[in-house]
Amino acid sequence: MNQSVAGHFDSETLTAMARACRKASRGLARADSARKNALLLDIATRLEQATTDILTANQRDLAAAPAYGLSDAMIDRLRLDAERIGNIATSVREVAALRDPVGEISHMNEQAGGIQVGKMRIPLGVICMIYESRPNVTVDAAVLALKSGNGIILRGGKEAFHSNHAFAAVIGAALAAAGFDAAAVSLVPTTDRAAMNHLLTLEEEIDLVIPRGGEGLIRFVSQTSRIPVIKHYKGVCHLYVDAAAAPEMAEALLINGKTHRPGVCNALETLLVHRDIAERFLPRALAALAEKGVEVRGCEQTRTFSAAVVPATDADYHAEFLDLIIAIKVVDHYDAALAHIETYGSNHSEVICTNDYDRAQAFVRDVDASAVLVNASSRFNDGGQLGLGCEIGISTTKLHAYGPMGLASLTTEKFVVLGRGQIRH
Amino acid sequence: MNQSVAGHFDSETLTAMARACRKASRGLARADSARKNALLLDIATRLEQATTDILTANQRDLAAAPAYGLSDAMIDRLRLDAERIGNIATSVREVAALRDPVGEISHMNEQAGGIQVGKMRIPLGVICMIYESRPNVTVDAAVLALKSGNGIILRGGKEAFHSNHAFAAVIGAALAAAGFDAAAVSLVPTTDRAAMNHLLTLEEEIDLVIPRGGEGLIRFVSQTSRIPVIKHYKGVCHLYVDAAAAPEMAEALLINGKTHRPGVCNALETLLVHRDIAERFLPRALAALAEKGVEVRGCEQTRTFSAAVVPATDADYHAEFLDLIIAIKVVDHYDAALAHIETYGSNHSEVICTNDYDRAQAFVRDVDASAVLVNASSRFNDGGQLGLGCEIGISTTKLHAYGPMGLASLTTEKFVVLGRGQIRH
Repeated sequence: MNQSVAGHFDSETLTAMARACRKASRGLARADSARKNALLLDIATRLEQATTDILTANQRDLAAAPAYGLSDAMIDRLRLDAERIGNIATSVREVAALRDPVGEISHMNEQAGGIQVGKMRIPLGVICMIYESRPNVTVDAAVLALKSGNGIILRGGKEAFHSNHAFAAVIGAALAAAGFDAAAVSLVPTTDRAAMNHLLTLEEEIDLVIPRGGEGLIRFVSQTSRIPVIKHYKGVCHLYVDAAAAPEMAEALLINGKTHRPGVCNALETLLVHRDIAERFLPRALAALAEKGVEVRGCEQTRTFSAAVVPATDADYHAEFLDLIIAIKVVDHYDAALAHIETYGSNHSEVICTNDYDRAQAFVRDVDASAVLVNASSRFNDGGQLGLGCEIGISTTKLHAYGPMGLASLTTEKFVVLGRGQIRH
Repeated sequence: MNQSVAGHFDSETLTAMARACRKASRGLARADSARKNALLLDIATRLEQATTDILTANQRDLAAAPAYGLSDAMIDRLRLDAERIGNIATSVREVAALRDPVGEISHMNEQAGGIQVGKMRIPLGVICMIYESRPNVTVDAAVLALKSGNGIILRGGKEAFHSNHAFAAVIGAALAAAGFDAAAVSLVPTTDRAAMNHLLTLEEEIDLVIPRGGEGLIRFVSQTSRIPVIKHYKGVCHLYVDAAAAPEMAEALLINGKTHRPGVCNALETLLVHRDIAERFLPRALAALAEKGVEVRGCEQTRTFSAAVVPATDADYHAEFLDLIIAIKVVDHYDAALAHIETYGSNHSEVICTNDYDRAQAFVRDVDASAVLVNASSRFNDGGQLGLGCEIGISTTKLHAYGPMGLASLTTEKFVVLGRGQIRH
């Protein structure tokens, strides 16, 4: 294993790094939109110009990948080429084009005594991003943090160590060229677990921790951190086909949700079918799933429609398959569907297919999930699709941000009071 | 010490209590505003009717107070009488009259593909309130939680144990009479520290922890909890008197901020004076402070204006005096004032007094505090004064809520997507 990856862990150096990032973040917080946008456009240009260097670094990571026991899918996520770097640069330019949330003053009203009171949107300060093997997260997260006026500490996985360093070097050079303190984007120089643990204690220096990766990593970070954590847990997403659904629409939502991109968190994992529509809907649904090569694990009633359906266990209803597998259950009524979602769901994305107005309204109100969708694919629970322009992740934590987190989620609001000498009586 | 106070700690009972509160909270989440308001008005009536019982319980706490070593000021906060209970009932009726934040749909827009996307305000779920000696917090916090559709677990201090139980019994009876599950407001039956520690691990059952009390308690809770914590730390609040300030306005803001109610978190603790106005302002300011009996600890320059000023130490500039004591420093320029606030401030309430438009605009933008005030007393940083109608505390955490937390701060938003069968391509 490369010495620079496992690296020497030194808590004082890490604390100093976080303090430097905090200090540097103030320069970003005070920068106006034009200056931040110019910085982002320069980062995009520099990324394209540095393609050769970045690919050389990526080759070093790819060469080490077998030693880390990476699967083919993981190696694919790690691999960069000129086209992928071009796409990353394009997404940086897209973030530059988004509206800057910082400085917006809202709800300015006159209160008793004649003081004017409003709220001003401000950066959070310093964000710590903890992620695994995808090197593009280094650029995506840094650029979203900078645009929203924050500093960011990046702690990527060892698998992408050299690629991450190459990206961070480009961003650091752009920051310095624009007259910002390059410490505003700080890549942790070691992937040592003890270093991460130390970072998670720095509540004075860091305002928010965002872990992205496997459930184990997220659970570990949220249980260890003294700093607020926004979790991006799994998506056990349901499609509930109501008695009043149009079967062809339900089929389209099912196939899109399950097969469009099975490996992502907003893919469907379980289908719930009202018993009154089971006979009309399930045969065509099962045929369509079979045609797409989806393995079906169903309840007893589901199994009466096809011999290919294997019996579903309780674990299947809890599972985030992330694969061409689906669990199906026929429910006796709407409340049974709600109860199932409450028990097995992960507060991510929940879909109803119905043409019953009251039922649709009830579902929107009753279901506790970051996105509740009526007659639309679960795949729409995504920052780009929902109009945020970008996302740093999909929060399944209710505090601060619930669902896709765009630029505004990386800010908070302070109260602004404008008076003419008023005192309190 | 009363057996029921130190109580037997049983983690299974506590977990069951939290689960029951989670279950009960769903009934509140689905209740409409009319039903919640009727509940609150009934709680107010029942509080007045139960005055005798509540005062009897309060007498038990007051009798035990000397054994707990409570100061006179603490005993005064603990003491209830018919008038105070009447005031608590009035404040419950005021919360009933506030607009219900739950169910509001905002930012509904059509996105690509024709889906309609908006955000709906929803309750957080279950809040755990940890507080010390003031029994009225039991009612205030419960009522704010109920109005915003949440369940609440209340963990008060041992000093107010019997008073808290009397209040919780009234609320429980009102919940049951209105057809709600009384577990929606659950008072922890023991003040054992181990019980609190166990509660702070229940991340599946509790969505938010709000500690209110001394700095030690807040620090302990935030370092122990696995659940998100919103801290309500100290207020080291500054008044910066700019070169372009009107001396009479500055004096009024100073005296109001320091002496109106010295023991609260939005009272002034430090005065910063631009050197160009020091000669015109400080003599009158020092005279006005002396007249109010305020002890002054000042820098060398401040001391040239009065022999009564004692030298200020670094610790004085860090101090939250909560008393008739103020620290004063003359600064050479605006940036020195900013740097002082950044170093010694607690992100609570920061005031500038100036008639310079650019300076006022810069201060509003540059200062990182939950409330930044121009030509208005620091005492306005209060939920009632800022138009929230109520507050559960003043957050000095930036995540989720920064500054006074009203009903909306006890809610979050989920995405709502309304389609006509759209799938993602």
